[in-house]
Amino acid sequence: MTDRLAEYRQVARDLSVDAVALVPGPNFTRALGHSFMSHERPFLVVIPADGAPAAIVPNLELSSWALVGLDGATFDWRDQTGYMDAFAALAAHMPMKRLAVEGQVMRVFVHHALAQAYGDLNIVDAEREISALRMIKTPDDIAALQAAIEISERALTRVLDGVRIGQTEKQIEGALIAALFAEGADDLAFAPIVAAGANSALPHAHARDDYPVQSGDALLFDFGARKHGFAADITRTVFVGEVSDEGRAVYNTVLAANMKGLEVTRDGVTAHDIDDAVTGVLEASPYADRIRTKTGHGLGRDVHEAPYIMRGNPMVLPAGTVYTNEPGLYGEGKFGVRIEDDVLITEDGCRTLTTFTKDLLIIGR
Amino acid sequence: MTDRLAEYRQVARDLSVDAVALVPGPNFTRALGHSFMSHERPFLVVIPADGAPAAIVPNLELSSWALVGLDGATFDWRDQTGYMDAFAALAAHMPMKRLAVEGQVMRVFVHHALAQAYGDLNIVDAEREISALRMIKTPDDIAALQAAIEISERALTRVLDGVRIGQTEKQIEGALIAALFAEGADDLAFAPIVAAGANSALPHAHARDDYPVQSGDALLFDFGARKHGFAADITRTVFVGEVSDEGRAVYNTVLAANMKGLEVTRDGVTAHDIDDAVTGVLEASPYADRIRTKTGHGLGRDVHEAPYIMRGNPMVLPAGTVYTNEPGLYGEGKFGVRIEDDVLITEDGCRTLTTFTKDLLIIGR
Repeated sequence: MTDRLAEYRQVARDLSVDAVALVPGPNFTRALGHSFMSHERPFLVVIPADGAPAAIVPNLELSSWALVGLDGATFDWRDQTGYMDAFAALAAHMPMKRLAVEGQVMRVFVHHALAQAYGDLNIVDAEREISALRMIKTPDDIAALQAAIEISERALTRVLDGVRIGQTEKQIEGALIAALFAEGADDLAFAPIVAAGANSALPHAHARDDYPVQSGDALLFDFGARKHGFAADITRTVFVGEVSDEGRAVYNTVLAANMKGLEVTRDGVTAHDIDDAVTGVLEASPYADRIRTKTGHGLGRDVHEAPYIMRGNPMVLPAGTVYTNEPGLYGEGKFGVRIEDDVLITEDGCRTLTTFTKDLLIIGR
Repeated sequence: MTDRLAEYRQVARDLSVDAVALVPGPNFTRALGHSFMSHERPFLVVIPADGAPAAIVPNLELSSWALVGLDGATFDWRDQTGYMDAFAALAAHMPMKRLAVEGQVMRVFVHHALAQAYGDLNIVDAEREISALRMIKTPDDIAALQAAIEISERALTRVLDGVRIGQTEKQIEGALIAALFAEGADDLAFAPIVAAGANSALPHAHARDDYPVQSGDALLFDFGARKHGFAADITRTVFVGEVSDEGRAVYNTVLAANMKGLEVTRDGVTAHDIDDAVTGVLEASPYADRIRTKTGHGLGRDVHEAPYIMRGNPMVLPAGTVYTNEPGLYGEGKFGVRIEDDVLITEDGCRTLTTFTKDLLIIGR
């Protein structure tokens, strides 16, 4: 744990702030080696640039918190008396003028409690700098991701074997979820997307319980298992019964874009360069008006994390980064195709952690 | 939808703010009738005290957003150009000085984007007032809760039939999750707790993959299905193989506290009164030092929502409120017992939506 906290101290120094605050979520779990929930109860650890850390902990979590073994002050609070006394005690214990927080994780009620207790505190959103520490994966991280991906791919194999014309999206989604847990998932990485026909053209579709899949439908699966704290995120689009010429042409365009992403990925590529290459393939096709999304995002403890693979993002991606390469084309009212791999950047190129075939599959015949 | 927005306008007026902002989550879903995710992308709807609402929507959600049919301005933004222009456009379109937000849902990055775009905006945490609109359940809400509970109870029945001495907590958790989906859950309401022996004494325990359950263990299940947007939340504690005299005495104490809660619940009771009665039973027992938590919380679209059932909370609870009655005793290093019902307050008393037996069960023999 000592090493991990040192990284957060360094973030505080780099940003010229007094401390970094973490709340339950992926950074908190990584820094402390234990995972907690927060719900409606403020729970945070403050790691100063210099000196010992301190924590605010809901009283009912104290037994679990003791397992963390944090070498610093803990201010607990009970539901009955509320949390403001604990924030006041923290403010007295650790005076600060500038505090870096995770803007995508910390909620406003904790922000307000800090602002109120400190009176004059500049709360800086350092989501990018704090979460960047998770970007380069360790061998353990990669093993966990690989396990999550293998579970996910075995589940997809099971489900595709069972799809029949006339099943609803919701039935297929249920089969997918059951297969993920049967294959060993600790949890879902996110609520899966199972979308057929026109629904597949919505990048974040919900499965319908009144739409039976029909011959000729595109059928899109975007899903993943969570294992040992890490999330898989895979998309495959198959066709049911038959595929139209347009379906095949769109599929091949998306596949070419996906392959272009793998081709340009190597140690030191920028997020901009990957998206530019991938989106460039889509733009050069007859389906440029069906582009809706950037190429992808980092993947690890969080399903969506840095780096965001989009034009204009100059971030240099070193070996050890894992990102999703997920170009798609979305024909509103018609169908959508997305093909998503989880890609590990290596010294001399990349390795796709996902191995499920990207050949155009026609199923359910 | 029109009626629902009127309620939020009224909250704005009651709080003397210019508008209420909602971000994806339970209030957003309730107000708009459609559910969305947000992840790293700001997405919000602003409902002014007077005049038409406005929204900031990620471009890739526009097709889904169109289904909402909001009668007001929509400012979309793309990943490539970022979201600050959309916030600036909102600020120009809808000048405000005071804005009420959901402090437990909105994250700091959206708070900061609003503060930056408006320059001089007083952002008020109105979590309580906004979420209070969800407290009294409609007949549809109750039907959805009931469906989630029935799925959960059928899953528990399946799992208890299969528990054997020597299985790990993690194996039993896996069986529970699979059973929830097999019984028709749309999703898990939350990551379930399956905790045996000393682990059951942690109110928020994690299932271990290296602890086989043993004869004499308490075995605690805290879990629930999500169905039609609503969450069940049930706890039952059983004993494996045999039960000690202490186990039986603690169980009966917790059960008496649970029953006391049902006895005092009726239209107009306060949150304080329920917790005072329930906790009073625990305090009068020989196990008063094992109290760690308040009695419970509201339940609906969120697993934890208003009202919070604790001493000092003067909130009057009308008929239609659903709360969890979940007293527990946690003997550190020994075992814990919690018994949790989901309770609907009625005109003349209450109805426990959970019907799974609270008799002391000895399983796995």
